[in-house]
Amino acid sequence: MKPLESLALHVRNGILSILDQRLLPHQEIWIEVKHPETMFECIQTLAVRGAPLIGVAAALSIAKFAETNASDREIQSAAARLKTARPTAVNLSACIDRLSIGEHYNGKPLDRLKLVAEAESLFMEDVLLCNRLASQCAPLIQDGDSILTHCNSGGLATVGIGTALGAILQAHLDGKRIHVFVDETRPLLQGARLTAWELKKFGVPHTLICDSMAAFLMQKKKIQKIFVGADRIAVNGDFANKIGTYSLAVNAHFHQVPMYAVAPRTTFDPNCPTGASIHIEERSKEEVIKEWADQSTPVWNPSFDVTPRSLVSGVILDDSII
Amino acid sequence: MKPLESLALHVRNGILSILDQRLLPHQEIWIEVKHPETMFECIQTLAVRGAPLIGVAAALSIAKFAETNASDREIQSAAARLKTARPTAVNLSACIDRLSIGEHYNGKPLDRLKLVAEAESLFMEDVLLCNRLASQCAPLIQDGDSILTHCNSGGLATVGIGTALGAILQAHLDGKRIHVFVDETRPLLQGARLTAWELKKFGVPHTLICDSMAAFLMQKKKIQKIFVGADRIAVNGDFANKIGTYSLAVNAHFHQVPMYAVAPRTTFDPNCPTGASIHIEERSKEEVIKEWADQSTPVWNPSFDVTPRSLVSGVILDDSII
Repeated sequence: MKPLESLALHVRNGILSILDQRLLPHQEIWIEVKHPETMFECIQTLAVRGAPLIGVAAALSIAKFAETNASDREIQSAAARLKTARPTAVNLSACIDRLSIGEHYNGKPLDRLKLVAEAESLFMEDVLLCNRLASQCAPLIQDGDSILTHCNSGGLATVGIGTALGAILQAHLDGKRIHVFVDETRPLLQGARLTAWELKKFGVPHTLICDSMAAFLMQKKKIQKIFVGADRIAVNGDFANKIGTYSLAVNAHFHQVPMYAVAPRTTFDPNCPTGASIHIEERSKEEVIKEWADQSTPVWNPSFDVTPRSLVSGVILDDSII
Repeated sequence: MKPLESLALHVRNGILSILDQRLLPHQEIWIEVKHPETMFECIQTLAVRGAPLIGVAAALSIAKFAETNASDREIQSAAARLKTARPTAVNLSACIDRLSIGEHYNGKPLDRLKLVAEAESLFMEDVLLCNRLASQCAPLIQDGDSILTHCNSGGLATVGIGTALGAILQAHLDGKRIHVFVDETRPLLQGARLTAWELKKFGVPHTLICDSMAAFLMQKKKIQKIFVGADRIAVNGDFANKIGTYSLAVNAHFHQVPMYAVAPRTTFDPNCPTGASIHIEERSKEEVIKEWADQSTPVWNPSFDVTPRSLVSGVILDDSII
């Protein structure tokens, strides 16, 4: 496999490694991924996260596996299992499907060189895709804007510059003077841990807030734009994104603040007519209870929520705007 | 002093004790308050919290002191010092002033029996006030309701059953089958630590959520009512309450969920025409950063936000409804 470099994943000397995002911003520890099962665990435990990154990382781990003496059956089985690591992210399935493992399994042996080349292409495509997304968003960000973002949709969620946060970072790189308000994004605090880390790395002025404070900022007219990612987009433009996005959308609508979801075309699910048919993953109660609540407390912990297209100003894909 | 019983304060066999709220929900440790100086430390370190509770607890510690052979001068000095334990808490000064220590000090000796009786009255008045609030709210809560609340406004903040949470607890005691969704209430997590603990103690079915999940629950029509406290109410009915209340109000308005602020008449400020004149305290960045974000991250941490009267269905006082 050829060398590949990104903020949270790299292939060096044929070794695939991913940055353990659970330890950010305090430690930058890389995990060597020798087997797809390691990637499965990394995805499930959120060591690797962000729909585009998950998809590319999973495909690369299968490609690495195809470079060993694993049997076709073992590769097919690992691929099928990896697809189940996160139910909501459609990229994961889409990327693994691109490796054409299933169709070859019934008969002909796998073309392993082609499989590896395809995984490498997925990486390069994501870099280019992020650049196209940033270009699509560029006219929407003005010099002087204060922009709110939620969760993390930057270079830690993709192998390129990012989606929603990528557009923000690119605006800064283009010389626009912007200020970014970062939702901490409970329960897993990707905003506080990851987005703030990326913004600091790029030197973008920013302020961290609790999720519940965003509405008060809008009341004070301190927010000009909101950019968020999307994990799955229905045919009618409704989209699933990190829990808390819907609350922001209602507030953006009420305060007439333009809000945009920014995501790759692969996030668009033609089999999903509206947001009502998006399955929402519920995660463990421990993420909410942490060390402060009573361990026996009943918890509801949906990982995502669904925002209707009608509440936002646009859903921006790399090749079109819904 | 006569026996007194409440959730976080009691007088038994003449001994005044307060529940150390810093250790909740994991440990229930009671601190014996032998001297007003102990209460001073308990208030300053937030072992005892909640404006109504602080006021009554401080007054009772002075009354206990008046039952010893302490001199009038020592009692006056202890009272003056206790008033400074939390300079911003109006109830604290108001309760200590009710003991009439200052006016007696210049001349006549203190009437200690009267002083103790007055402190006991403060306790009983708060119990009755909470009961009146609960009575005002009773017609608003129906059997089968799922109710959302934010922060803590229960028996840990008062010596009665509480204000907003008190109304909810009373509905349960009245036999109404209700379910309570508890916002964890970042950054200080009073919902996760205190409100969930109270609900468990009373046996009220409840579910803890992150603040950003409340909107999604409303989208799913899982919330019938929202009850919150209020720290200050303007003449036009706008009110300040724990940060996050405004975001809930916008969402309640959008989803047509009835929302009520519940607070004592003393919270109403005749010198404050609208919410715009309410000063909002900003607290330290460490509360938001905690152990997970980079220590150098810039933070905005307002303690309260302001909700316009127009977004909620009612502001309920113990003697009237705005």
